[in-house]
Amino acid sequence: MNVQGRPTRTIRATDDAVEIIDQTALPHSFETRTLVTVADAAHAIATMQVRGAPLIGVTAAYGVWLAMRADTSDGALATALGMLRATRPTAVNLRFALEAMSATLRPAPPERRAALARGRADALAEQDVGINRAIGAHGLAIIRDLHSARTHRGGGGPINILTHCNAGWLATVDGGTALAGIYAAFDAGIPVHVWVDETRPRNQGALTAWELGQHRVPHTVVVDNAGGHLMQRGRVDVVLVGTDRTTATGEVVNKIGTYLKALAARDAGVPFYVAAPSPSIDWTTADALRDVAIEERSADEVTGVVGRTAAGGMATVWPLPDGTATANPGFDVTPGRLITGIITERGIAAASRDGLAALFPDRAVPESDG
Amino acid sequence: MNVQGRPTRTIRATDDAVEIIDQTALPHSFETRTLVTVADAAHAIATMQVRGAPLIGVTAAYGVWLAMRADTSDGALATALGMLRATRPTAVNLRFALEAMSATLRPAPPERRAALARGRADALAEQDVGINRAIGAHGLAIIRDLHSARTHRGGGGPINILTHCNAGWLATVDGGTALAGIYAAFDAGIPVHVWVDETRPRNQGALTAWELGQHRVPHTVVVDNAGGHLMQRGRVDVVLVGTDRTTATGEVVNKIGTYLKALAARDAGVPFYVAAPSPSIDWTTADALRDVAIEERSADEVTGVVGRTAAGGMATVWPLPDGTATANPGFDVTPGRLITGIITERGIAAASRDGLAALFPDRAVPESDG
Repeated sequence: MNVQGRPTRTIRATDDAVEIIDQTALPHSFETRTLVTVADAAHAIATMQVRGAPLIGVTAAYGVWLAMRADTSDGALATALGMLRATRPTAVNLRFALEAMSATLRPAPPERRAALARGRADALAEQDVGINRAIGAHGLAIIRDLHSARTHRGGGGPINILTHCNAGWLATVDGGTALAGIYAAFDAGIPVHVWVDETRPRNQGALTAWELGQHRVPHTVVVDNAGGHLMQRGRVDVVLVGTDRTTATGEVVNKIGTYLKALAARDAGVPFYVAAPSPSIDWTTADALRDVAIEERSADEVTGVVGRTAAGGMATVWPLPDGTATANPGFDVTPGRLITGIITERGIAAASRDGLAALFPDRAVPESDG
Repeated sequence: MNVQGRPTRTIRATDDAVEIIDQTALPHSFETRTLVTVADAAHAIATMQVRGAPLIGVTAAYGVWLAMRADTSDGALATALGMLRATRPTAVNLRFALEAMSATLRPAPPERRAALARGRADALAEQDVGINRAIGAHGLAIIRDLHSARTHRGGGGPINILTHCNAGWLATVDGGTALAGIYAAFDAGIPVHVWVDETRPRNQGALTAWELGQHRVPHTVVVDNAGGHLMQRGRVDVVLVGTDRTTATGEVVNKIGTYLKALAARDAGVPFYVAAPSPSIDWTTADALRDVAIEERSADEVTGVVGRTAAGGMATVWPLPDGTATANPGFDVTPGRLITGIITERGIAAASRDGLAALFPDRAVPESDG
């Protein structure tokens, strides 16, 4: 996507390092960081300099490459995989990317591992871009249909889309998932307006607002509390979100608060779609509440709010009484029964085992009796 | 309630002025302000130095008294009523308090108006305290029943109560509404733990955390996105919230985001109660979505976050990109179908016209045919 008119990706490998956009500096400052070691890559993921399930996976893959550049031994490979796996527990893309790297590298002779790792990481990055292009086309079709139906009824105005967190190009290598269809619709001349959830505690809505602003897509930021009100007043035509992990049964693990918006959408009759690249579908998990680890993140994210100061720098303020106890679960589970459809690169699936298996017969795992 | 061990009310009239706690300085600093004129009172309400539906009503009543101290003419009375009515549109207590003051003062000779105004305002303040004591007893019964049922099943641990915004003593003259039952349960030795919603954009959760902390009630602050997750994991036993206006049909207008928690409570089978002093019940309104004005507050509340700085002062930071458009609806509507019961001073009513009318046959208005 474009940053001040220049085509930009969130991650880019050079001959001997990996460049990322430091998303902790956004939206106030556009800064890149250079990752030279696997520890740099693990740090970038853990501190959310890179975030978003697809981008986490690709960054981890490049992290393995950085490890192999330094030491191609079995021990170094195992250490790198372990270090990267420990960074974030919920997004399954991380596990898949590391499994792919491991499958490529373990059988290979050490002297070929660096080149193979680079090739595999590059392929995962390109795969992400291609998947998002396809998801964008399917998302565009949803928005186009809503617009056609409205026009047919004689209605006017933009299609109002509510989104939560950031499932834009910043969450991916490029293109975005939930936002891919919105960009495609905007580029196709369909009038759209995006309600952007602030997404406490980390305010990823600021990232979404920033990237929509770079693309000149009309948008309005609201606090996370506002979505129910907007939907009950008929001011949302469709909800589009991403996912950190989707089970084989169509349960969606996504940024904390997604479930609340899905409940409101059902109550108001608003369609609710999840953009899920297939690398975020966990074919081996059926029950998200039971089987998916929900990351409990630092209390600091709840107690401290980071932003620009009046003087133009960055600072943290603490709204709560000093010493207040907090909890900070990172994700919740949206049951398939609340989801209109799961937008994958192969089309839109019903949020169920059968629905996903119909689109991915080559990947779905037969339901176990256990 | 006690502040550092000293019994304190949110508002207190002296011989010639009104003292309030400046809630915009909380939780970091306990400061009182002295209101001398009706303009001072209107300013305190509009800027949310005082907030909470019951306290807004009583502050407005004292505001009329301040006006009468300066000028007892019909014109001054009309001006005062108009100025105070314009401060906040949603809480019906404001309207009721002003109607009560008007009914007392208009027929009275000017020379008696100052004394009558003071007497009526004092009576409204005492009425609030009495109502909250009764609501607290009914809330206590709910929590006691939950605790008994759990003990009977052999379960342990505290009763986990989720609350949104601040419906504590800071929202009233004293005692609180939703929190009244929690304080009563705590004082009765029932183990309780409160999940406190942050309540963006104004972070009234900080006020709730502060007052629970003063009373040593165990509590944990979570972002507004977290409640659905907590409920779907069985970590909430009951939701207790307040209301800014409840219709004659049992629809609850309350702080933005309340509706989302009610949806999650229904989905998880968690009881959802609203503490509604009768002065917050609008017997003339049946359809909240159609008939209740929802205050659209300043964009500044969304874009800027106020808190303590590292240096110990107060400051605002701006997390969003500069110039981002925002919307800031202050309240949403929770339909009666999502509400387990409405806790009034006369007992717990079903959230319906019949339920409320059964407890308040003297106030309910027959349903119009129009």
